[in-house]
This record gives sequence, structure tokens and C-alpha cells, in this order.
Amino acid sequence: MEPAVLDEIQRIFRAARFISDLGIELESVGDGECVTTLDLKDRHLQQDGYVHAGVHATIADHTAGVAAATLLREHQMVLTVEFKINLLQAARGDRLICRAEVLKPGRRFSVVESQVFCVDGGEERLVSKMTATMAYVDV
Amino acid sequence: MEPAVLDEIQRIFRAARFISDLGIELESVGDGECVTTLDLKDRHLQQDGYVHAGVHATIADHTAGVAAATLLREHQMVLTVEFKINLLQAARGDRLICRAEVLKPGRRFSVVESQVFCVDGGEERLVSKMTATMAYVDV
Amino acid sequence: MEPAVLDEIQRIFRAARFISDLGIELESVGDGECVTTLDLKDRHLQQDGYVHAGVHATIADHTAGVAAATLLREHQMVLTVEFKINLLQAARGDRLICRAEVLKPGRRFSVVESQVFCVDGGEERLVSKMTATMAYVDV
Amino acid sequence: MEPAVLDEIQRIFRAARFISDLGIELESVGDGECVTTLDLKDRHLQQDGYVHAGVHATIADHTAGVAAATLLREHQMVLTVEFKINLLQAARGDRLICRAEVLKPGRRFSVVESQVFCVDGGEERLVSKMTATMAYVDV
Repeated sequence: MEPAVLDEIQRIFRAARFISDLGIELESVGDGECVTTLDLKDRHLQQDGYVHAGVHATIADHTAGVAAATLLREHQMVLTVEFKINLLQAARGDRLICRAEVLKPGRRFSVVESQVFCVDGGEERLVSKMTATMAYVDV
Repeated sequence: MEPAVLDEIQRIFRAARFISDLGIELESVGDGECVTTLDLKDRHLQQDGYVHAGVHATIADHTAGVAAATLLREHQMVLTVEFKINLLQAARGDRLICRAEVLKPGRRFSVVESQVFCVDGGEERLVSKMTATMAYVDV
Repeated sequence: MEPAVLDEIQRIFRAARFISDLGIELESVGDGECVTTLDLKDRHLQQDGYVHAGVHATIADHTAGVAAATLLREHQMVLTVEFKINLLQAARGDRLICRAEVLKPGRRFSVVESQVFCVDGGEERLVSKMTATMAYVDV
Repeated sequence: MEPAVLDEIQRIFRAARFISDLGIELESVGDGECVTTLDLKDRHLQQDGYVHAGVHATIADHTAGVAAATLLREHQMVLTVEFKINLLQAARGDRLICRAEVLKPGRRFSVVESQVFCVDGGEERLVSKMTATMAYVDV
């Protein structure tokens, strides 16, 4: 990865207030892929004690955006065009891990898949899966 | 709306920690529809100063869930099966308003559409649109 | 609409072999919108006598593509990036009508919504709804 | 797989008129998975000589439906609730191969992924990917 791209990725994490506010952390990043984690607190839950769908979507979208950003060229930024997420099972546990991978890189946009796993008492289960279209926009 | 359903809807808002933590508020609710609002703060933004896609998704999903919950029968709860959201334009402004409406009610699940508007200096623009499948699960 | 755009739209219908083969016909077209119809035959059905989801998707996608094509600039063509469709009820009847409308026009892509109605004994019911992202590609 | 389930799967292929009309053939089927193929003809193309998005969607949906049907219980049928497909690259070639796999089996519905590959001069490329929600409906 070019140093300028790595700088941009670190900026995406430092500067994205919603992400730091929620507690989502960058675990690792490589060409076309990214892993993030989130220690679950009560504030991440919905009315029945499960992780809120908005938390699934946030970690899956942001991790997908960073995976797409590893393929950025100079003077571009990444914006989410659209995504679709399936909540595969109600999630409750200690931690989320999100693994995103570019399925199809492109010049104008990339298609990225994110898988969200919930770690509960040492066991890791797939709890949601997203497909996202990320655009490269000139700045 | 049955009093029991209205109770459940108020509980969904009071008890959903992620929603109160973000500052999303219930504006109105009716059969198959719901309106919510969010006063935008810096903590809702992504790295380039726009509302994070995860915030769009959270308000759209939760409002859709409440719209679906107005059609709940006794001893049921609502869970998001899946949703798809299109970010139509980068959002920056004072406030989000989300309007959700059930497109197709069903016994086992309902299909709901949410539109998110951004209010900036008195002007209101459509910034994202979601289609969600909400399941009714026996509890 | 520019005459060149109208020419392109008529070409899209004449030249799209899958569409003429299925029997889908252009009903009307305007800026950012299009209406098509399909007389239902046994060959459009799935194993239980309902219209196949692939037929819903085909008419919804093609009609959305034409609605997006009304906003084409010279030396561009339209390609489907992605779509999502909800099958709202099992469809059986005489005819499908599809109405597509651009929700958000753009320079590089437009977001389009298609609604598919099934006409059965004079009654018209909404049977599926699509959201599609259509890209404008230079040729 | 139970003989009754295998019977149902063969019926889904024999009785689905749209599928036999298009020329889609069953290659193999196992618990939670299915592979189908389609020899491409001019009638499967759109206006610029590529495989129509409706053909991608049809083979991906039907193959996903059969993968879900391998988990059917007695007196149930499979219906598509919704799907989302990303067209990853314009497809042109001799043959499509679709491989579908259940991502998350359930009692009331299963989430299935389909990958469509285009074979052109011996080379096989991933051209589209679908995520579908398939419901089990009592009959």
C-alpha cells in the first residue's frame, strides 16, 4: 500500500467522529481488505438486548469503506453509494469483529463484502453480512 | 392503534439504548407509519464532515421497525431481517427527519420504506432511502 | 427529450433481444420515467403457476434502465450496477405493467425505482418493487 | 436429501416454465447448495450484446430457490421474498454457470448466495453475485 493511502486510512479512522464515538477500532488493513472490532456495551443494544441493526450496519459499512479506500488514487475520497445487509441472527455477546473484502475493484466504484461476527464467551458466530457499493469521488 | 401496541412502541424507544444514546426521537406514529428526528452533532459525522452512512441506516432502520411494530399482534416482537439503503447525496445540516411507511403488511413480515431528509438552514432534502424487511417473531 | 435520446431509447427496445423475446413492450417514456407492459403467458411462470421472480426482475430492471437512459448524454450507454427487488405478493393474472421513475439523477449514475403491477380480471395490484443503480458509461 | 425433497426439486425444474423456456439446466444439487448452467444464445442479450441483467437475476434467483428447497419440510413450498444482485462486469460468452449456497438456514426462511460465472473461450469469470431471502410457505 502507498504511504499516502495508509495516511488516508488512518485519517478515515481518526477523523470519523461517529466511529470513534461508538468505539470501533481498526485491527488490520491490507490491499482490498480491512478488519475492525467493537467491544460491546449496553449503549449498542436495541430494545430486546440484542446489538442494534444500526450498529451492524455502521461497522460493516465503515470497514467496507476502508477496504475500498485501500485502492484509492490521489485526490479521491470514498463515499457509500448503497448497501444491503442481512441480519442472520440476533447478536448478543462481548465483541463484534468485522472483516471486509473487495469483491470487485473498479476505477469509479468497488463492490465490497463485509461479514460481522459476534464473539460470545470465546465462540465466534457470523451474525450479519453486507454487500456495499463504494464510489471513488474526486476531491 | 391498540393501547398494548402503543405501549410496545413507547417501550421500543425508551428501551433501545442505541437510539436514545444517538439522540433519535419519536415524532409521531400511526397505523403502519412513523416519523423520527435527530438533531445533528459532530459525533454523527464521518471523516469528511458528512453524516455517517451508519447514522442514515440507524434512523431509517429504527423508524421502519416502529412502523412495522404498529401492526404487531400480542406476544410478538419485531426483528430486522434485512435492509438496503441508497445514500442519495452527502448530508450536512442541522437535523435529520425520517419518515417510514409500511409498503406491504404481512402476517410473518412486513416490507417497509424509510426516507431520510436532511434539514439545512430551513431547507429539507431527501438524502437516503431504505427498503427493509421486518419479521414478526413470537416471544 | 432530445431526438438523439429518443432514438437511443427506441434502439434499447428494438435491439434488446431478451426483452423482445419475452414480449415486453414500451408503453410510454418521459424525462426520468418509463412505463412498459407484458402480456403474461405460461412461459413466464414458475413451478407453482406464479410469475417467475426472474420476470419481475427483468421488466423492472429494463424499465428502470430506460428511465435512466432518458437522462443520457451523448456517447454514453446505461449499464445496471445493482438492484434489489422485493416480491410483495405472488402474481398471477393477465398482464404486468411496470412504472419506473428516477429517484435521484446523477452524472455518473442514477438511482431508479420500479413498481410492477399485475392486472388480473381488471384489478391492478402492486406485486413487486425494485430500487436500481444505473451507471452511465462512456462508449 | 430425502427422496420427497429430491422429487420436489426435480418438479421445480420440470414445472418452472420460465426456466425451461430460457434453457437453464440443473447440473447438481446437495444439502443447501445447487449448480445450474445456461448455454447463451442471442435471445439472452441486451441492446449492447451483453447478457441481460434479467438473465443474471433469473438464473441466480432460481438456483438460490433450489438451494433453499433442499431444506424444505413436507407440505411447504419456496417463494422468493427479496433479492439483491450486483452486476460485477458486463458478461459475454458461451455459457453461464450459477453456484448457489445457503448462507443461513432457517425454519421460516433461508438466506442464500448465488454466484454467476460466465465461461468465454474456456475462461470462467465471476460476473454477478446475489443475496436472496427465500421463504418456506405452507401449502
